[in-house]
Amino acid sequence: MVNTTERLTKAGIELPPAVTPFGPYVPALRIGNLLFLSGMLPTVGHAPKFFGHVGKELNVEQGCEAAHAAALNALAVVQQQLGSLDRVSRVVRLGVYIAASGEVDLVKIADAASEVLRDVFGNDKLPARLVFGVAGLPLGTPVELETIFEVAA
Amino acid sequence: MVNTTERLTKAGIELPPAVTPFGPYVPALRIGNLLFLSGMLPTVGHAPKFFGHVGKELNVEQGCEAAHAAALNALAVVQQQLGSLDRVSRVVRLGVYIAASGEVDLVKIADAASEVLRDVFGNDKLPARLVFGVAGLPLGTPVELETIFEVAA
Amino acid sequence: MVNTTERLTKAGIELPPAVTPFGPYVPALRIGNLLFLSGMLPTVGHAPKFFGHVGKELNVEQGCEAAHAAALNALAVVQQQLGSLDRVSRVVRLGVYIAASGEVDLVKIADAASEVLRDVFGNDKLPARLVFGVAGLPLGTPVELETIFEVAA
Repeated sequence: MVNTTERLTKAGIELPPAVTPFGPYVPALRIGNLLFLSGMLPTVGHAPKFFGHVGKELNVEQGCEAAHAAALNALAVVQQQLGSLDRVSRVVRLGVYIAASGEVDLVKIADAASEVLRDVFGNDKLPARLVFGVAGLPLGTPVELETIFEVAA
Repeated sequence: MVNTTERLTKAGIELPPAVTPFGPYVPALRIGNLLFLSGMLPTVGHAPKFFGHVGKELNVEQGCEAAHAAALNALAVVQQQLGSLDRVSRVVRLGVYIAASGEVDLVKIADAASEVLRDVFGNDKLPARLVFGVAGLPLGTPVELETIFEVAA
Repeated sequence: MVNTTERLTKAGIELPPAVTPFGPYVPALRIGNLLFLSGMLPTVGHAPKFFGHVGKELNVEQGCEAAHAAALNALAVVQQQLGSLDRVSRVVRLGVYIAASGEVDLVKIADAASEVLRDVFGNDKLPARLVFGVAGLPLGTPVELETIFEVAA
């Protein structure tokens, strides 16, 4: 199994505290060997770390930073749920939903999230990916990530 | 197991007839212990019960009512598929897709759907949740729900 | 099992080469008996075959053609992954995400994708379906498909 702690250090990633829900839902739940996460936003606590639409209030580079921040929130929840990221045997699904129109480079922003997962879990655990621009996101944030992880038996 | 019939009564919920598809798809299908539902809209029969965008033709309160109506349609399909809501061992996933921009209180509208599921299945069966604003929905409706349920063996 | 090769011929469908990823993700991955595909676009190679929003640059008929093209890309990936489409025991999930507002006939465009799957796999393998309009899609394309297939043991 990958030593994800080493990989986190190598990638210069320090995980934030795991987010807590805003309402009647859970941050993550496990069914069999699949861990389903709630949508992860670029938030600190319950406050947006990035605010606005990419292509309007934010540029693509800021969109990438927001995707990076949301990915760290996802990792923090996985670590909290499983005790260690080493227990992830596969990233199954990554959805990247960006408050932006199709004129914005959505792929570049999605890659910023994908690269975090690749850096931590390696090239042999890459997920299927879905990317689209949305009309708006909770708290006015620019990026939301949907993730499903497979947990090693 | 939860007695969902009692809970429905207590919450003042009367389930509508289960919706039928508009095209070549099914309202729900089961794979192993997971029941995947098609997107549920605030419809009565094949007609929209609510019409328009939240923040334009509809206010947030009406968006909440639409989310409530869509949640009842989801429950009606689950009951039709499983015979009884008592057989749901977990709500796995709730996606709340709202025809609205990020300036609208999307979380409040999503909570209206979440609260129906919580009232019926209880706090120990809460799902992972995903919420975003979309550019438009089938039939011009304001809310669509994606749901996955775990079925007790 | 369905003879999908015959069905493809009967439907006049010739599958394109399977798409390759634009970034750090995979076109498809299998977890247990479920095959999760990445979002499929109406592309040829890495270039859009259709470009623009339905209701703006494209009309509904062109949106339907784009949905058809994206569905063929999905089938090509399934064939590449499984060796034969005959191994699909069920289409579990079809998400149809259309760059369009709710004034556009989203159901008609979604049906164009659904019909490809029905023609190839038959009426007894129809999926649960989710349809919405998005603000934009990768490469400025008008339709993206999310698909999950069940693989026969």
